Amino acid sequence: MDLTRKRLAHIVFESDDTASKRFDIVLLVAILGSVTIAILDSVQELHKEYGTVFYLLEWSFTILFTMEYLLRVWLSRRTAGYVFSFYGLVDLLAILPTYLSLIVANSHFLAVVRALRFLRVLRVLKLGRYLREAQVLTDALYNSRLKIQVFLGSVVTIVLVMGTVMFFIEGPESGFTSIPTAMYWAIVTLTTVGYGDISPATPLGQFMASLIMLLGYAIIAVPTGIVTSEISASSKRRKQDERVCHTCHASGHDDDAYHCKYCGTRL
Amino acid sequence: MDLTRKRLAHIVFESDDTASKRFDIVLLVAILGSVTIAILDSVQELHKEYGTVFYLLEWSFTILFTMEYLLRVWLSRRTAGYVFSFYGLVDLLAILPTYLSLIVANSHFLAVVRALRFLRVLRVLKLGRYLREAQVLTDALYNSRLKIQVFLGSVVTIVLVMGTVMFFIEGPESGFTSIPTAMYWAIVTLTTVGYGDISPATPLGQFMASLIMLLGYAIIAVPTGIVTSEISASSKRRKQDERVCHTCHASGHDDDAYHCKYCGTRL
Amino acid sequence: MDLTRKRLAHIVFESDDTASKRFDIVLLVAILGSVTIAILDSVQELHKEYGTVFYLLEWSFTILFTMEYLLRVWLSRRTAGYVFSFYGLVDLLAILPTYLSLIVANSHFLAVVRALRFLRVLRVLKLGRYLREAQVLTDALYNSRLKIQVFLGSVVTIVLVMGTVMFFIEGPESGFTSIPTAMYWAIVTLTTVGYGDISPATPLGQFMASLIMLLGYAIIAVPTGIVTSEISASSKRRKQDERVCHTCHASGHDDDAYHCKYCGTRL
Amino acid sequence: MDLTRKRLAHIVFESDDTASKRFDIVLLVAILGSVTIAILDSVQELHKEYGTVFYLLEWSFTILFTMEYLLRVWLSRRTAGYVFSFYGLVDLLAILPTYLSLIVANSHFLAVVRALRFLRVLRVLKLGRYLREAQVLTDALYNSRLKIQVFLGSVVTIVLVMGTVMFFIEGPESGFTSIPTAMYWAIVTLTTVGYGDISPATPLGQFMASLIMLLGYAIIAVPTGIVTSEISASSKRRKQDERVCHTCHASGHDDDAYHCKYCGTRL
Repeated sequence: MDLTRKRLAHIVFESDDTASKRFDIVLLVAILGSVTIAILDSVQELHKEYGTVFYLLEWSFTILFTMEYLLRVWLSRRTAGYVFSFYGLVDLLAILPTYLSLIVANSHFLAVVRALRFLRVLRVLKLGRYLREAQVLTDALYNSRLKIQVFLGSVVTIVLVMGTVMFFIEGPESGFTSIPTAMYWAIVTLTTVGYGDISPATPLGQFMASLIMLLGYAIIAVPTGIVTSEISASSKRRKQDERVCHTCHASGHDDDAYHCKYCGTRL
Repeated sequence: MDLTRKRLAHIVFESDDTASKRFDIVLLVAILGSVTIAILDSVQELHKEYGTVFYLLEWSFTILFTMEYLLRVWLSRRTAGYVFSFYGLVDLLAILPTYLSLIVANSHFLAVVRALRFLRVLRVLKLGRYLREAQVLTDALYNSRLKIQVFLGSVVTIVLVMGTVMFFIEGPESGFTSIPTAMYWAIVTLTTVGYGDISPATPLGQFMASLIMLLGYAIIAVPTGIVTSEISASSKRRKQDERVCHTCHASGHDDDAYHCKYCGTRL
Repeated sequence: MDLTRKRLAHIVFESDDTASKRFDIVLLVAILGSVTIAILDSVQELHKEYGTVFYLLEWSFTILFTMEYLLRVWLSRRTAGYVFSFYGLVDLLAILPTYLSLIVANSHFLAVVRALRFLRVLRVLKLGRYLREAQVLTDALYNSRLKIQVFLGSVVTIVLVMGTVMFFIEGPESGFTSIPTAMYWAIVTLTTVGYGDISPATPLGQFMASLIMLLGYAIIAVPTGIVTSEISASSKRRKQDERVCHTCHASGHDDDAYHCKYCGTRL
Repeated sequence: MDLTRKRLAHIVFESDDTASKRFDIVLLVAILGSVTIAILDSVQELHKEYGTVFYLLEWSFTILFTMEYLLRVWLSRRTAGYVFSFYGLVDLLAILPTYLSLIVANSHFLAVVRALRFLRVLRVLKLGRYLREAQVLTDALYNSRLKIQVFLGSVVTIVLVMGTVMFFIEGPESGFTSIPTAMYWAIVTLTTVGYGDISPATPLGQFMASLIMLLGYAIIAVPTGIVTSEISASSKRRKQDERVCHTCHASGHDDDAYHCKYCGTRL
């Protein structure tokens, strides 16, 4: 009995043998299916035509996920550990909205709560976290977090100053109705998105906007430079880890090293 | 007789001597000509004026490509090999639509089928595949395919979550009529394209949109970092890993080195 | 007495112990608070509702900053040095507008002067200048300033030539009313912002616009390449150029190396 | 007499001592002045107000540049060499339009010819060609020209295929009136400019457009990668040129080399 439970827990929580991998794939398909239905149901025409089918499928997936959730709670040794872990909360939040729709009649409140169902997608990310490549990218971003914070701080300051200046130059006639709106415009421009819902109309405003654009065009080089140099460094580090000294078993030697940098032995 | 056929096959399928290169260039000009005519014919004004000329030219090119196709089929030793190869199918699909237009009267169906003619452009790519530089770029993209998949996965997740959130925040009044439409908007914004056909109108929506823009602006650094570090690594690898010093076993010597840069031994 | 003043000066001007760091944080919160109020006050609806509250808060912050300014003037040994330094002027310009609003009645002049309050944000940058990471980025930008100037010069030339050409091709009907406007459009296009408030309508204009876009898309690689190679070089330089082997005079050893990687000598 | 001429030629054609540098700066100011006047004259309001002033200034600059042109022709030893050189033609084309405006009355022809005046800006580039940094960037672009050609070829193919597909999917209702127009839209989208003058309206069209955007977002990494790796390589090369072997006087040694790679001498 206890062995079966241990085996089940392995299948549900790990993903290193055939059975547990199969469980993950079934779960992944179910998550993608439930998300697809929620997306299709939001299209007015499809909702009118297939609303009932979507409703039934939604309940089927919800019951499936509820069973899976109860299974996980029952299996986890330290139940509180799973229930209050990040993925435990995500799992719970992903099944609650459908049940809440039975009790609450306020349709606007429901609409907001229903968005929580999409947290199920995070499950997909969870399944993907074993990927080694994702680790390299996450490491590169983590190592350069300080530089990125400094960069984002500069961007926010530019947006604040430029938004205020443009608010006073252009005024409400061109759509710059308030400083927050002007800051929204500054972000739209600096990131080179450029919707065109708000755009400068006065010559001075167009000149200032040109400066912001050139600035945005130039400083996009900074995060790229940071991340690129970090990725290069981390893949070099990974390569170094492959040469091992046969005397002191240390790794981390450069490609062109021919003595161990720790004990001096010939590599 | 057999020698002539072998010679012809060489001219048609290879491109390493004067005759075969000349054949390739004639073919390239014919492909570009037929594509140009199809493009010009799609302009209403030109179609009215020169419709008949375009029609005649289209048939001339089609007959030329048909003759070339039959020649290739006849020349290839393993006929089935060429006919069912990727370029064999492209060659066939490129000439079929014009003949189909004689049989089928349904103009909408024809319009779709005609698009297949543009597959002839792939021929140009085929001619270009010998370029060594293309190989370097393809290698770099191939080596970083896992990282790019992880990156695209993250982008799709961001688009899904942000699209849903914006659908519930903005609603149909601002053009966010369904989750797929909101996801389309999220892609337009994240990639910094920013058409402006759909744009947020509420303060909260504009704030969320600003976050997506800054995110898109920041994460564009990731694929650039991946590809850059890969191109640098592969061109460095190609240059260096070839010569090893027989005394100290060091590698990493420049192409023009005569002596080991570490111990001075003659290479 | 003198000791207290010295101690106070340390707290106000430095930021290396608990008291001075606390002073900086209080100041930072006050600056962010005053900026937030100025931003919120620019929204018409909030101004109507909470105008009086904002007015009182603005005066409170202004009095606080005035006291801080007087304290700094009193504490700085070489008073003239602080008063005419960059941050001294910023501090003064940040508090003046509120007092000026008592004297001057011209509302348009006041609106422009009020924008100066946002210079307070530069204080935040000042507090952040101790960050080592900011130094690395600033160094990279400083070292590549010549290359960036050359790049910006080329961009301005392209904008000038393309703006003029488009002004003559498109003319006022499509919104290209003058060469400055056409140059504004060229910047909007080259930086890939693309508002769409002005866009080419003639086939020739669209063809020229396509060339500018492809050019902008290609040359964005140049500043990125400059900054990336500079960041890589400067972080590599920082790490390596410090330790030299006394036997073979080789440098380039890792931080954790005990033996020279080329000759095995103890470092 | 001959010495004076030689001295004058040095001042006009070189820029390595005080007098010749001063000549270059005066010329630069005159070019920028004449370009500024042509720009301002294109603004309708300014033309009405200051049209006569601009006309007189334009003639002054034209006479100045004519004198400079004649001086250059007289000074250059091989007159034909200068007259038919690139900059000789630019100098001539820059002064011709003003004279032509006296003879030709056709205002449309004049408008086009006047654009040639902006070629004077190329003079600025000429003055800047001595900059060593410009050389590094030009070298990097020149060395990666083959890779950039392959990249641009791929972009053109994507634009051709995607433009045709979108023309058949969307049709004239959404603004995709012909294949050239659809290709223009594809370039606007792929380069992330996104005017929004033409945008897809059907779900299938929006899906295809999303694919193009993600593609454009991803492949922008390729030119960046090419140029970055080239700039890194060329600045490494420049650094190598600084260590010289005292036996064979060869340069080009790596930072970590301690024997000359050509003769094996200890560096």
